[in-house]
Amino acid sequence: MGPAVGQAKKPDGGPHAVDRLAALLAEDLAAVDQLIHQHMTSPVGVIPNLAAHLIDAGGKRIRPLITLAAARLLGGGGDGPRKLAAAVEFIHSATLLHDDVVDESSLRRGKKSANTIWGNSSSVLVGDFLFARSFNLMVETGDIQVLDILARAASVIAEGEVMQLAAANDAETTRERYMQIIVAKTAALFAAAAKAGAVAAGRPGAEATALETFGCELGLAFQLVDDALDYGGMAATMGKNIGDDFRDGKVTLPVVFARDAGDDGERAFWRRVVGGERTDDDFHRALALLKRHNAIALTLDAARQHAQRARDALSALPANAYREALSDLTDFVVERGY
Amino acid sequence: MGPAVGQAKKPDGGPHAVDRLAALLAEDLAAVDQLIHQHMTSPVGVIPNLAAHLIDAGGKRIRPLITLAAARLLGGGGDGPRKLAAAVEFIHSATLLHDDVVDESSLRRGKKSANTIWGNSSSVLVGDFLFARSFNLMVETGDIQVLDILARAASVIAEGEVMQLAAANDAETTRERYMQIIVAKTAALFAAAAKAGAVAAGRPGAEATALETFGCELGLAFQLVDDALDYGGMAATMGKNIGDDFRDGKVTLPVVFARDAGDDGERAFWRRVVGGERTDDDFHRALALLKRHNAIALTLDAARQHAQRARDALSALPANAYREALSDLTDFVVERGY
Repeated sequence: MGPAVGQAKKPDGGPHAVDRLAALLAEDLAAVDQLIHQHMTSPVGVIPNLAAHLIDAGGKRIRPLITLAAARLLGGGGDGPRKLAAAVEFIHSATLLHDDVVDESSLRRGKKSANTIWGNSSSVLVGDFLFARSFNLMVETGDIQVLDILARAASVIAEGEVMQLAAANDAETTRERYMQIIVAKTAALFAAAAKAGAVAAGRPGAEATALETFGCELGLAFQLVDDALDYGGMAATMGKNIGDDFRDGKVTLPVVFARDAGDDGERAFWRRVVGGERTDDDFHRALALLKRHNAIALTLDAARQHAQRARDALSALPANAYREALSDLTDFVVERGY
Repeated sequence: MGPAVGQAKKPDGGPHAVDRLAALLAEDLAAVDQLIHQHMTSPVGVIPNLAAHLIDAGGKRIRPLITLAAARLLGGGGDGPRKLAAAVEFIHSATLLHDDVVDESSLRRGKKSANTIWGNSSSVLVGDFLFARSFNLMVETGDIQVLDILARAASVIAEGEVMQLAAANDAETTRERYMQIIVAKTAALFAAAAKAGAVAAGRPGAEATALETFGCELGLAFQLVDDALDYGGMAATMGKNIGDDFRDGKVTLPVVFARDAGDDGERAFWRRVVGGERTDDDFHRALALLKRHNAIALTLDAARQHAQRARDALSALPANAYREALSDLTDFVVERGY
């Protein structure tokens, strides 16, 4: 699902919203990290080694933070939300391991990907292990309702991944199809993470629905920004590890915008490069076409709209520090693209 | 996990025990098949197509039959055990899909394997989908206790698969290590399938434990016979698709027996062929060494002992047609090797 979020600082030098959220939830987050490490132990050495390589590589824990904040926002506390937050991170980690096998990725969070070091087979099987362990954690909460939410999300994520695989190299992928894919592969887990937090806090009604919407919209914004960053975002020359989606023949929203606004020759170019033949020169031409049609800015506009909808969804919820931190998170997600 | 069980007939022409068990549970089994097909639907076409290719390929549904029989044996009925039985088959199917990717298998149940037709990526992701759907089915039962049993089994299975991967090409694999691997990768699901049936019937105590032991021992017998069949069983010339374990450099119990009884030259042979270099001639020499040291017969003896322990575990349970059918199943599992 694209590069992890770095330890970014705002231009004014202050900490970014995700760091402020982590600070607000420091005690919970430390407990979640402990749960994560407890539940990834195994006498089979490659399991904790491979899992730690990914999980300790400096991911921002955005999804578990959302679960924790959603629960706290509604007055929930204790072990339940922490276990769910750890379960959410395990589902996410399992997905990353399998994604990297599917995409043949060699880098993840700035390090060699697990499949590069341990091989595809180990990544597949340790992904299965983490996925199973996420359910062990959920079972420990004894709450069948959150199990329902996260088990549904897990099957939707897998559907989204298969949809994405089926759409790869299809230059005619529409904006609607692309949105379907990212709703499933990315937003579903953000939505479930937020909703599960509310349900764990004993608030399964309108507040859970509001948080679900918040999560879904935030997840869409997050993925759109990821897809813009994969072409360097607004500062194309600074990005590291850009061009993965291009090399994988994935039609993301920037490409949709450039393709649909292009002339016949440009559309022929996109058909060719998405369909299979791609060189480094092609990537530079792609960047030029994205620039000509303002495709990155349009993608970030779309992200901003989803971030706004995420903020709007929060208005139905009690105003407190957690709500404010979640609201700030929507800014953070969009700012990453600039 | 080796070849599926064919539509075998006993020498006297009567139906084998697994067919009799299926007949006894015909109504339940039809309902389970319906649940399976309902829950593998998806608007993403490759998912139902790939899943059906595997699931409709003529597997015997031994694991779901065990869940159903365990529940019925203890007076349980209704939808709960059926949903669990479908969930068990989904876990098994997900494991098979990922196994075939890991082992680079080209055949499964006498047909091209899914990874051969749809590619490794689709097999990984559809496996994830089926695994998630198994939890959707379990959640539908509303029974957190069975979720606990099957979620634990799922992580143990993944551990077993990783252990097996780590042991591949290790010619020094001991009998103890081999048993650890098959307890985890195979027997854990048989055990959980049986125990979950008992718990779904509202009998979580001593009867569930007896059925868990039954399942574990039956699973061990099943895997030992599978491993003997991978070298052709007692009728080595008749077997189809034999030699997969040999080609994968897996040390199974037949190899352990032959290696440990062999002289220095034979042990050097096993070190070489397990370690990496293998020809067709090597396979024929391996078969000759297994024969010289009676390794297939010894493996089947071990299977017979586990089958006996499975039968013994049933003695603590009410005597009825379901118990009898489960007892007969232990004979069936061992007879396959002859």
